[in-house]
Amino acid sequence: MKLYDFPMAPNPRRVRIFLAEKGIAVPKVTVDLRAQEQLGAAFLAINRFATVPVLELDDGRRIAETVAICRYIEELHPEPRLFGADPYERAIVEEWQRHGEFDGFLAVAEAFRNATPGFKDRALTGQHGYAQIPELVERGRQRTLRFFEILDQRLGQNEFVAGPRYSIADITALVTYDFAVGTKQYAPAGVAHLGRWHQAVTARPSARA
Amino acid sequence: MKLYDFPMAPNPRRVRIFLAEKGIAVPKVTVDLRAQEQLGAAFLAINRFATVPVLELDDGRRIAETVAICRYIEELHPEPRLFGADPYERAIVEEWQRHGEFDGFLAVAEAFRNATPGFKDRALTGQHGYAQIPELVERGRQRTLRFFEILDQRLGQNEFVAGPRYSIADITALVTYDFAVGTKQYAPAGVAHLGRWHQAVTARPSARA
Repeated sequence: MKLYDFPMAPNPRRVRIFLAEKGIAVPKVTVDLRAQEQLGAAFLAINRFATVPVLELDDGRRIAETVAICRYIEELHPEPRLFGADPYERAIVEEWQRHGEFDGFLAVAEAFRNATPGFKDRALTGQHGYAQIPELVERGRQRTLRFFEILDQRLGQNEFVAGPRYSIADITALVTYDFAVGTKQYAPAGVAHLGRWHQAVTARPSARA
Repeated sequence: MKLYDFPMAPNPRRVRIFLAEKGIAVPKVTVDLRAQEQLGAAFLAINRFATVPVLELDDGRRIAETVAICRYIEELHPEPRLFGADPYERAIVEEWQRHGEFDGFLAVAEAFRNATPGFKDRALTGQHGYAQIPELVERGRQRTLRFFEILDQRLGQNEFVAGPRYSIADITALVTYDFAVGTKQYAPAGVAHLGRWHQAVTARPSARA
């Protein structure tokens, strides 16, 4: 197997943390997003959606989507369980993993990509250019703030995002948090539970992946 | 179990089709989105994200997200397999299910909710109002068109969206297609494979759910 990766991008980091939690090493191929390598013909032949990560299997088949890759890894290496251990837990992990993406990750991306000069005419991922829309900067920041408020309340009642156990929902939320802070779209304030949780998940060796 | 539902909304339809493919009947509770019942205190206590569908189990626990609900149903009633039958197939179903959402469903929703007077100041789901942004109407329509072009090519090489078998990826794509056509955000033209597939999946009894 090999993983098409870019160190600075948040979605590949989700897979790297997932692999680190499983204790698995996968060789990496860097796709230089700063040089727009993902928009070149060679990479579009690998993934026409022009995104990383992509996992390539030894027989050449590919899985070109973050969570699909993680699920595949979970099937090959079930322990530790990062998608939940029984049907209800798996449903709640899925629910919060998806809230993390739709209400958190996409909100940060909306603020960041519409605010950042380097993403002019590439406000969305993919091979087609989309113009930046200034109103989306403030909307993205508001959505991010509101998502972290909900997450803070959730973490006041649960050790981890999906409940008592660390899961992929924590990985998505951690990467979203660091994406928001790292790109200065959000500065946490008055969110004690979120801070406690962030410290705990950041202390895990996988967070450096 | 019972399902919080709204007949006209696309996400609950995904769960209804899924249940119909499984041959399972679940009692439904209608949440009247036209009357903004999802924003009232009673429903926010059920789901603070203010969305349907929500599945309530007999012990009162809830799963408040479309795909999380479908996964839970798949665990209780594994046949027919709608999330794939082996690890790689499950990864590809997941990949295309998610492309259908991020690149398809969200694009249609973007065009529709920003274009429609009834969604003034509610351009996104959830309890917080967000203003409509006129530029998003055209952007959403472009994204929809480009997604259906990719899907058309995919369906030129595969009987169903994720490969040789009907799956949740077809359900998401069908609901996205009907959402786009039903709200007049997209009129398919010159997409023969997509048309062939749409006719086939629409002919299944589940499509009327």
